[in-house]
Amino acid sequence: MNYPSRLIEEAVNEISRLPGIGKKTALRLALHLLKRDQAQTLQLSEALVKMRSQTTYCRQCHNIADAELCNICNNPNRDQHIICVVVDTRDVLAIEATSQFKGLYHVLGGIISPMEGVGPADLNIDSLMQRLEGQQSGESVEEIILALSPTMEGDTTAFYLQKKVKTFGIRVSTIARGVPIGGDLEYADEITLGRSIVSRVAYD
Amino acid sequence: MNYPSRLIEEAVNEISRLPGIGKKTALRLALHLLKRDQAQTLQLSEALVKMRSQTTYCRQCHNIADAELCNICNNPNRDQHIICVVVDTRDVLAIEATSQFKGLYHVLGGIISPMEGVGPADLNIDSLMQRLEGQQSGESVEEIILALSPTMEGDTTAFYLQKKVKTFGIRVSTIARGVPIGGDLEYADEITLGRSIVSRVAYD
Repeated sequence: MNYPSRLIEEAVNEISRLPGIGKKTALRLALHLLKRDQAQTLQLSEALVKMRSQTTYCRQCHNIADAELCNICNNPNRDQHIICVVVDTRDVLAIEATSQFKGLYHVLGGIISPMEGVGPADLNIDSLMQRLEGQQSGESVEEIILALSPTMEGDTTAFYLQKKVKTFGIRVSTIARGVPIGGDLEYADEITLGRSIVSRVAYD
Repeated sequence: MNYPSRLIEEAVNEISRLPGIGKKTALRLALHLLKRDQAQTLQLSEALVKMRSQTTYCRQCHNIADAELCNICNNPNRDQHIICVVVDTRDVLAIEATSQFKGLYHVLGGIISPMEGVGPADLNIDSLMQRLEGQQSGESVEEIILALSPTMEGDTTAFYLQKKVKTFGIRVSTIARGVPIGGDLEYADEITLGRSIVSRVAYD
C-alpha cells in the first residue's frame, strides 16, 4: 500500500506485527489514534512499556504476579493439595472464571512442540518437579490436574508430565474430554464423539 | 475479569479503547507482547507516539503528509483541474488503489452529522472554498467530485457542498451508486437496485 507518510507506515508496520492484526486493521487503528487526543496515545504506549518492563512472575507457579507470589498462591483459602497444570495465564483466567477449581496452578509457559523446537527444558517443568519434591511452603500435593488442550502437542506434553509426576506417587488426572455442553451430537466431530463414548460416565 | 496483575489490567484497558478491540483481544495482545522481546514493545510504543506527535497535514488538501504539501498535491503530473472530496485519508488510499483518478483530493476530516454534533464549521469546507476562490498555486479547478458514503450523513454533506460549490460555476459530480460489480441482483437491497434503475446508463 502507498502510505500517506513515513510515520504512518512505521506505525502500521509495528501494529501489524501483533497477532491477528493485518495492515488494513493497523491503518484503521493508527488513523483512530490520530483523531483522538495525544494523551490517549501516550497512555497506551506508556501502559505497554510499563507492562513489558515491570511485569513479574510468581516464584511458585510462574503466573503473572504483582508481588513475589501471585494472588492465588498467596491465598490461604486455596486448596494446597491440588495443582492444576496449564499452558499460560489465559488458561488460568479461563479456569478461574468457571469458579469450579479452588486449588493452585502451575503455568508451563508453553507446550512441548518438536515442530517449533520447544522441548521439556524450555518449559517450567523442573520447577513443578521441585514443588512436588520439596513440598515447600506448606504444600502437600495430592493430585495434579493436567488442563492442556486436546491437541497433539497437548497430549504429548500431558503424556510426558504424567510419567514424571507418577514417580512421586501422586495422583494425576486430566480434564474431561467429550461433547461440549449445549452442543449438538450431530455436529460433534467423530474423534470427540468416539472418545466421549469410550470415556462414558456411569450414573451413580 | 480478574486480571493477574495491575500492570496487565492497565495495558488491557488502554488497548481495548481502540476501535473493534474488546477486553479479550486486548488481553491476548498484551500476553503476546509479554512473550516477545522487550524491544518489540518499545518499537511499537515509540512508533505510535512519534506518529501521533509528529504527523503533519497537507496545507492544501489536509491529507496526512510528510512535508508541507502531500505527495499528491506536490506531484506536477496530477490533473490540477479536478478535485475529489473525501471524508478521510482511508478514502484517499482506497481511491488511489483503483488507479482510476489522476486529479487532486480534498480531505474533509469528517462528515456533517447533527446527531454527533458535527457541523460544516468542524470540517475542512472553508479551505475548499478558498481553493476554489483563490485558484492559488496554479490550480484552475473545473470539476469537483464528491466521493462520500451513500448514507444519510454522506448525502447531507454532499447536498451542502454541492450547493456551495455551484456558486463558483464549477461542475459538481458524485461517484456512481448502483449494483456492485460481481454482485448478484437478487442480493442487492431495494434502495440500491431502485437507484440503479433510475440512474441507468445508456449504451453509446
